[in-house]
Amino acid sequence: MTHADLPQALVTGGTIGILGGGQLGRMLSVAAARLGYRTHIYDPGAHPPAGQVAQDVTTAAFDDVAALERFAAMVDIITYEFENIPTRALDLLQDRRPINPGRQALWVSQDRLVEKRFLRDLGLATAPFVPVASPEDLTAALAQVGMPSILKTRRFGYDGKGQARLETGDDYEAAHRSLGHAPCILEALVPFVCEVSVIIARDHLGASRCYDVPRNEHVNGILRRSFVPANVDARVADRSCRAATALADALDYVGVLALEFFVLADGSLLANEFAPRVHNSGHWTPEACATGQFEQHVRAVAGWPLGDVTRFHDVEMANLLGDEALAAPEDLLEDAVLTLYGKRDAKPGRKMGHLVKRLS
Amino acid sequence: MTHADLPQALVTGGTIGILGGGQLGRMLSVAAARLGYRTHIYDPGAHPPAGQVAQDVTTAAFDDVAALERFAAMVDIITYEFENIPTRALDLLQDRRPINPGRQALWVSQDRLVEKRFLRDLGLATAPFVPVASPEDLTAALAQVGMPSILKTRRFGYDGKGQARLETGDDYEAAHRSLGHAPCILEALVPFVCEVSVIIARDHLGASRCYDVPRNEHVNGILRRSFVPANVDARVADRSCRAATALADALDYVGVLALEFFVLADGSLLANEFAPRVHNSGHWTPEACATGQFEQHVRAVAGWPLGDVTRFHDVEMANLLGDEALAAPEDLLEDAVLTLYGKRDAKPGRKMGHLVKRLS
Repeated sequence: MTHADLPQALVTGGTIGILGGGQLGRMLSVAAARLGYRTHIYDPGAHPPAGQVAQDVTTAAFDDVAALERFAAMVDIITYEFENIPTRALDLLQDRRPINPGRQALWVSQDRLVEKRFLRDLGLATAPFVPVASPEDLTAALAQVGMPSILKTRRFGYDGKGQARLETGDDYEAAHRSLGHAPCILEALVPFVCEVSVIIARDHLGASRCYDVPRNEHVNGILRRSFVPANVDARVADRSCRAATALADALDYVGVLALEFFVLADGSLLANEFAPRVHNSGHWTPEACATGQFEQHVRAVAGWPLGDVTRFHDVEMANLLGDEALAAPEDLLEDAVLTLYGKRDAKPGRKMGHLVKRLS
Repeated sequence: MTHADLPQALVTGGTIGILGGGQLGRMLSVAAARLGYRTHIYDPGAHPPAGQVAQDVTTAAFDDVAALERFAAMVDIITYEFENIPTRALDLLQDRRPINPGRQALWVSQDRLVEKRFLRDLGLATAPFVPVASPEDLTAALAQVGMPSILKTRRFGYDGKGQARLETGDDYEAAHRSLGHAPCILEALVPFVCEVSVIIARDHLGASRCYDVPRNEHVNGILRRSFVPANVDARVADRSCRAATALADALDYVGVLALEFFVLADGSLLANEFAPRVHNSGHWTPEACATGQFEQHVRAVAGWPLGDVTRFHDVEMANLLGDEALAAPEDLLEDAVLTLYGKRDAKPGRKMGHLVKRLS
């Protein structure tokens, strides 16, 4: 499909189906509406935050065939806000409507082992890792990778969940048990200077654009702050963008993708993981750039040309977790742009909103 | 109410009821969602554009008492996107929930004669005008105001509707008949250099902020383009902001208000009319300023402190009317930010979207 061949429905404002109704789906929905589209959110949970700003909401499980079929019939194209969509739901949906980003990106990113191998096969360095298929594999893996290391489930990990950090003398078996003896990878903890991520968008015609690279601070596996500029060497930024471009091209990707890196003391990069979707470390883009990541993703999946990624401001983005979002507005808004996700229940550690401070 | 005394519902994300579901309601709804609020749109028409991005929609007439009561019971506060809300609907609603902007602003702006007199009583110059209560008044009014002049219905005019321009030799009676012999004002057409508007926001505590003044170009009574900076003398911008502040203070106004002026060759200003709501000539503010007019309005009516109105870019805003919005995205998006209103039916002259071009 070229841009000039856009289906009529997408020229005049059709309906974009979004799988998942959290804050990413919410911000995608608003961006889609701005371009004249209606959105339809599919989410198993009641009252998804994205449903508050969508034309329609389907509340159903991802194995509810009838609900998936009804959903597909009501939308023109489909995208998603999270990577753990069951394969069978995708099979059903992609026979009925175009889904972007495509199946391969989702399949690769759903399994850490497949993902790391895919990154390596592209020539990207990663931290040393070995698969741990069963408790019996763990001892050999520990000998091979050494200490300190980190045991990660191959599937369903996010925000530090599904991970156990191992130091010399720890009860390794107990750590594996705490992860349900799920298939894992054991990964060396390599000392790094900082973490950065590349937010890249790629369109139907294969054109791609990288946003300026943010430097990311995580606490307990959860992103707390991103800083732009990252204050890393220009060559580091360059190499990370080229790596993300190679990844997006290899996946024949359409949409926004985020690739995370560790930056080592000598300036070399280790690819960590990627997310086939808009990403928390790109939440500053709407306030700082000509086109934000959410509009960029909608443009790509709807077959529009990509927008300009020029950055107008230096920024700092901070997540608001749990009751941090309940602070008095005066305190939050002194000199920052506030986005709240419309979640009523401020559980500890839950992502409730974020603040973007323009520094220039 | 001070900011610290915000009702709990508005701190944790309550529901804002919006009367009117057009593009202004749509952009207000998105701005409210960003601050964590749900919105509920009340509109007599089917499929209001704002309904696509709102939690709830009530489709009912403004004289449907039961529907108004249900609506009031479901929301925490009420605001509106247009000034022609019937007085009886307001009476009912304001007994049940806080409504901002308040009754007086709406009442004054609903009647051109009351409005012009209110502006004059504040010491603001206007073009000469006289009331035309009946066809019999017209001859005397014409003698008093002279030619060229413009006959405007006192009520329900917008986008050039409800107006007839009169030149020497025209059939004046026919012009009045074309307006249904409605009560009118006859206003002198004063030669002006340009039109500007002030977008001002005022909060619960009486603090107010003016955005930089745009210069506006109208064609057939419909806004086509706004330019910022307006390239008018700094004293003109200053005086217009002081006039808008006086108006907002006199109305004890809470929310965003737009006051339009004619700028004469000698730099003097004639106040034309005001709108007690967010305004088309402020559509560039979200792309160019620290805080856009829609978020600013939500902040004010929800009892938050006003946001920073610093402008980061020079801009040009263009309305997309009728099938202008159906142009190929490539052409629209070359170097501008596009907002579409999700209207399917591109009637000639209908406001379908707008473009904001950042010039610096």
